[in-house]
Amino acid sequence: MQGLYAIEGNLAFAPALGELTTIPRGYIIVEDGIVRDVCKRLPSGLSPEVISYGDAIITPSFCDLHLHAPQFPMLGTGMDLQLLEWLSTYTFPLEARFVDTAYAQRVYRKLARALVRRGTTRVCMFSSIHREATLVLMRELERAGITGYVGKVNMDRNGPKDVLESTEQSVEETRRFLDECGQYAHLKPLLTPRFVPSCTDALMQQLGDIAREYPDVRIQSHLSENMEEIAWVKELSPDCAQYWQVYEKFGLFKPHTLMAHCVYSDEAERAAMKRAGVWVVHCPDSNTNVASGIAPIRKMLQEGMQVAMGSDIAGGAKLSMTDVAAEAIRVSKLRWLFSDKKEDFLTVAEAFYLITTAGQAYFGAQPGFGEGEPLHAVVFDDSRFVHEPKKSLQERLERLIYLSNPSDIIAVYSEGKKAAL
Amino acid sequence: MQGLYAIEGNLAFAPALGELTTIPRGYIIVEDGIVRDVCKRLPSGLSPEVISYGDAIITPSFCDLHLHAPQFPMLGTGMDLQLLEWLSTYTFPLEARFVDTAYAQRVYRKLARALVRRGTTRVCMFSSIHREATLVLMRELERAGITGYVGKVNMDRNGPKDVLESTEQSVEETRRFLDECGQYAHLKPLLTPRFVPSCTDALMQQLGDIAREYPDVRIQSHLSENMEEIAWVKELSPDCAQYWQVYEKFGLFKPHTLMAHCVYSDEAERAAMKRAGVWVVHCPDSNTNVASGIAPIRKMLQEGMQVAMGSDIAGGAKLSMTDVAAEAIRVSKLRWLFSDKKEDFLTVAEAFYLITTAGQAYFGAQPGFGEGEPLHAVVFDDSRFVHEPKKSLQERLERLIYLSNPSDIIAVYSEGKKAAL
Repeated sequence: MQGLYAIEGNLAFAPALGELTTIPRGYIIVEDGIVRDVCKRLPSGLSPEVISYGDAIITPSFCDLHLHAPQFPMLGTGMDLQLLEWLSTYTFPLEARFVDTAYAQRVYRKLARALVRRGTTRVCMFSSIHREATLVLMRELERAGITGYVGKVNMDRNGPKDVLESTEQSVEETRRFLDECGQYAHLKPLLTPRFVPSCTDALMQQLGDIAREYPDVRIQSHLSENMEEIAWVKELSPDCAQYWQVYEKFGLFKPHTLMAHCVYSDEAERAAMKRAGVWVVHCPDSNTNVASGIAPIRKMLQEGMQVAMGSDIAGGAKLSMTDVAAEAIRVSKLRWLFSDKKEDFLTVAEAFYLITTAGQAYFGAQPGFGEGEPLHAVVFDDSRFVHEPKKSLQERLERLIYLSNPSDIIAVYSEGKKAAL
Repeated sequence: MQGLYAIEGNLAFAPALGELTTIPRGYIIVEDGIVRDVCKRLPSGLSPEVISYGDAIITPSFCDLHLHAPQFPMLGTGMDLQLLEWLSTYTFPLEARFVDTAYAQRVYRKLARALVRRGTTRVCMFSSIHREATLVLMRELERAGITGYVGKVNMDRNGPKDVLESTEQSVEETRRFLDECGQYAHLKPLLTPRFVPSCTDALMQQLGDIAREYPDVRIQSHLSENMEEIAWVKELSPDCAQYWQVYEKFGLFKPHTLMAHCVYSDEAERAAMKRAGVWVVHCPDSNTNVASGIAPIRKMLQEGMQVAMGSDIAGGAKLSMTDVAAEAIRVSKLRWLFSDKKEDFLTVAEAFYLITTAGQAYFGAQPGFGEGEPLHAVVFDDSRFVHEPKKSLQERLERLIYLSNPSDIIAVYSEGKKAAL
């Protein structure tokens, strides 16, 4: 929407970890898609067009910093298996299908729409090994109004033939991918070695070279998700005492590198991440579903690490980040119990911070509805719930985190534009 | 619906723990609401009216054996607190409001509708201390087509004044409740001492007397949910070595007694339950949300205990039993991990069994769509999901357990009648 307008509703956002600001019937003033002000009442002398959402709740839209786009068709299936078995039985055969770009387009159009309908407007995403399908994914995301980063997966060992590339092919396709993906305004590429067991040292070496050549291109991968995986990495890279050192050795462990999971990252590994400026992506639903464990999220936050959150579909069964936030709270309560109540569980305000403010920071955006930045927002109509006795805005936000369905979302703004739901 | 008809669709049910029977495009033949046959094709010579649900999935409807009706208005709120604090801050003040029967009717009408819309047709439910509101609850459930058991809560100590009764009042109101609730065809009363800390020995004694007087009236309560609660019970009843013995001492621990939670029931307590014919109601979402723990569900099943499942709203945030089943699987995977992989996690087929067949048995119904019994069934339209690559019926059922919303349910049958959604 062009020109000056104001969005009216109950505003809620997390200025810092554990803090929640609510503005009952407040306004976000927007000009040409850019937030100009967030206020309790319209400034005198200003009479913008007002889009009133009445008693609805408006929050920043959500950030999903780790998900596997080609696994969308298997969402909520195959969950009786553990990580490595689940990969070979379900995941790899499905990912192999994305050599077919027509299939990719059908799936990715649905995925993009499903993300927007759940209020997710910023993503960091794994595609498959297929360059063409990855470009299709970026096109479909852009078309739906989603912004962020997408990576063509690199994988030259330990998988069935049809999801593997040769080392040369993997490097060459990655370079072509970097050349060809400049056409999208709001989607950028990521280097994406799947994880250490999937990439030979030769491939990692050359991805490290590319990373040095393209210093602005960020990196995403997996780290310390599962005990068997960690043991396997140790076997594959006996020269590295810890998992993270494999990535570091090849120049892939640097500021803005995203490492999904980190369930078993000990103090040393966490300190290395912090030192390097690497981000943890906490994927609680996935870590439970594939029976990996519970990440030490409280320790990470206390140590001042950069932590954001991911749905990790289809290891995670929930695409909605409000659902993922609720699962993060749930597992943190179990971790609190099993740590003899030493590691405090996540509060609702903290989980909300992780799916909004923390993720926004990865994209260089300020907390809340950042002034001077394009509007990213979700509008929830919670009128279907019981409102007697009257709830505070904080309680209503909590209820949305625990209970909302996509049908409760009545509007989504991304990059200053209203998205089609 | 009267007369002879057949329901057509993809049938799925759990004949036994861990077993799943699927009948693609099968038929349930019903006469005057009673199931006559479940078959792959219509028997020759029989030409009933066919209600075809096409490619939809039809399962037995769900059983929720533990929930607190008056806590429905707080669903999904107050979750940052633990059990005892949560009771005093949120639960008791809300329950006190149900002295107002007009308020009770507004809430209970919504609750009954919400249950049916989620495919739950059989329940065992706590009301509040209020006899009149409890009768309102039974009326609203019956009106919506829900069957089962409802208890007026007994509580004469350790709570704010407005949710406490005197011992005499509690006994007298319970007797009146038993006399007055005979008017409902499909809802029966339960004796409901809230839990040991809420009931004096004098009250327990007299409830035991009533139980002997009315041998057909079943009993429900809570057991070994939380470590602080268990310690408190030990203080209150120093003569009982274990929590369950307090119920036994007063004659309340007998066949069909329902004990919610049993998170910390050790071998001796579990053996006592089995011996007495007492049922465990596993409430995984609640046990996580109020940070109680993870019940040893695998051990209970292996020991041959009678186990069913409950939403336990509003400790549980999820009213839908498919959501509760998914949470049961999730926490069982964490228990598997923390038991050093000794206690196997629940499979999808097992969790599905627990919300259907296991609960049905409590109501005296056979597994599946029991022949000779009134039809209880749910019809799911899963066409909104991605079906490419093609999924097995088992996978589609799994996906519904992980992902379905009330809007996926297109028909519900209870006691042989189609319910209004």
